[in-house]
Amino acid sequence: MLKFLSQEEAIKIDQELFNEYKFSVDQLMELAGLSCAAAITKCYPPEKNKSVLVCCGPGNNGGDGLVCARHLKLFGFEPGVFYPKRTDNNLYQILTTQCVGMDIPFVEKLPEADVLNSSYSLIVDAIFGFSFKPPIRPAFVGVIDTLKSVQTPLVSIDIPSGWDVEKGGPLEGGLQPELLISLTAPKKCAQFFTGKFHFLGGRFVPPRLEAKYQLNLPEYPGTECCVQIK
Amino acid sequence: MLKFLSQEEAIKIDQELFNEYKFSVDQLMELAGLSCAAAITKCYPPEKNKSVLVCCGPGNNGGDGLVCARHLKLFGFEPGVFYPKRTDNNLYQILTTQCVGMDIPFVEKLPEADVLNSSYSLIVDAIFGFSFKPPIRPAFVGVIDTLKSVQTPLVSIDIPSGWDVEKGGPLEGGLQPELLISLTAPKKCAQFFTGKFHFLGGRFVPPRLEAKYQLNLPEYPGTECCVQIK
Repeated sequence: MLKFLSQEEAIKIDQELFNEYKFSVDQLMELAGLSCAAAITKCYPPEKNKSVLVCCGPGNNGGDGLVCARHLKLFGFEPGVFYPKRTDNNLYQILTTQCVGMDIPFVEKLPEADVLNSSYSLIVDAIFGFSFKPPIRPAFVGVIDTLKSVQTPLVSIDIPSGWDVEKGGPLEGGLQPELLISLTAPKKCAQFFTGKFHFLGGRFVPPRLEAKYQLNLPEYPGTECCVQIK
Repeated sequence: MLKFLSQEEAIKIDQELFNEYKFSVDQLMELAGLSCAAAITKCYPPEKNKSVLVCCGPGNNGGDGLVCARHLKLFGFEPGVFYPKRTDNNLYQILTTQCVGMDIPFVEKLPEADVLNSSYSLIVDAIFGFSFKPPIRPAFVGVIDTLKSVQTPLVSIDIPSGWDVEKGGPLEGGLQPELLISLTAPKKCAQFFTGKFHFLGGRFVPPRLEAKYQLNLPEYPGTECCVQIK
């Protein structure tokens, strides 16, 4: 049976991938973001859902979002990025430059819900990931509140933002995505996901690591970088 | 019409991707190697072609090969790697460690042609890439000679090793691959390719860069990371 990871297990597996298997963040983030873009394309064909807003948080979940936005552009979407809290980290800076080089517009201020509803076919929540601990940082309370009230379908990367990584949500302000893309392996909160589509992405787990943590990952079809769980 | 790049154009595009668009080598090599593994899987299903030897050169073409080997393992093959000339470059070292972590065996000495024929269903040539200039370095003359004489189908990454990047081949010792996987855009030598399958991989070219060099890349299907040209 597919394992749902505790927060501590998720952090340990992540550290093992970097420290023992020597993956670089660049590599895994590229594969993770690519798989998110692929899952989105499968659920929401770009012919009908051109305009996508990718909302990026300050950490690795936001980095996955930036990579995802870039691949969405190559898959035929017209993504925009909302990235309010940037850091000096070199990787996030180059990911941002790459999006700019792809002519992906950056939105400085999150529009009101009604404007989001009329402007975007899809909103990607790449705000908080598996290391999130409540409460929501003040800078993002308003963002989550606005996204909570939109009609546009939401896609969450790894964790629906605002949810407790283990106990699920929505808590005070958690989102209710229509598509959840778990990365590496689903976290415990994904058991409480009631949306339409659940995908797994991040096809990079060494078989020995999978066995060690008894992940029992589903088989990815062919050369696909994501697999539908539900 | 699809453009076939001169060596100088290929080098310029590569530099632009790194210097202007700020891609890291880790990122593009990951996507390039992944697309090679995907093209191989499409032409040679792993159910029938388990055992693959990936021969890696000292530069970026060899790096693509190491990434390719890792994804081949995840796609169900049993790859081995022959990597005779290693450098201190940190990226190649972590790519090597990742393969070891995936339980991919490294072959210290290239077996004779008859042993290669009986041991492997497929041999991947990741020896020289688009910056190759003849003559073949002494350390690889014997390797190319052996690979030239095998019956096992050969797959070349970007450039069939030993070929002139523009004038094609085979020169004194060039290989005749059955599958050629061009990366980013095909180089002029690919016009002289007479093997069975020609694929394009490396789906990361920003539309503006594609337009600037009038690459006229074929459309990648759906979320695929490679596309068949021939």
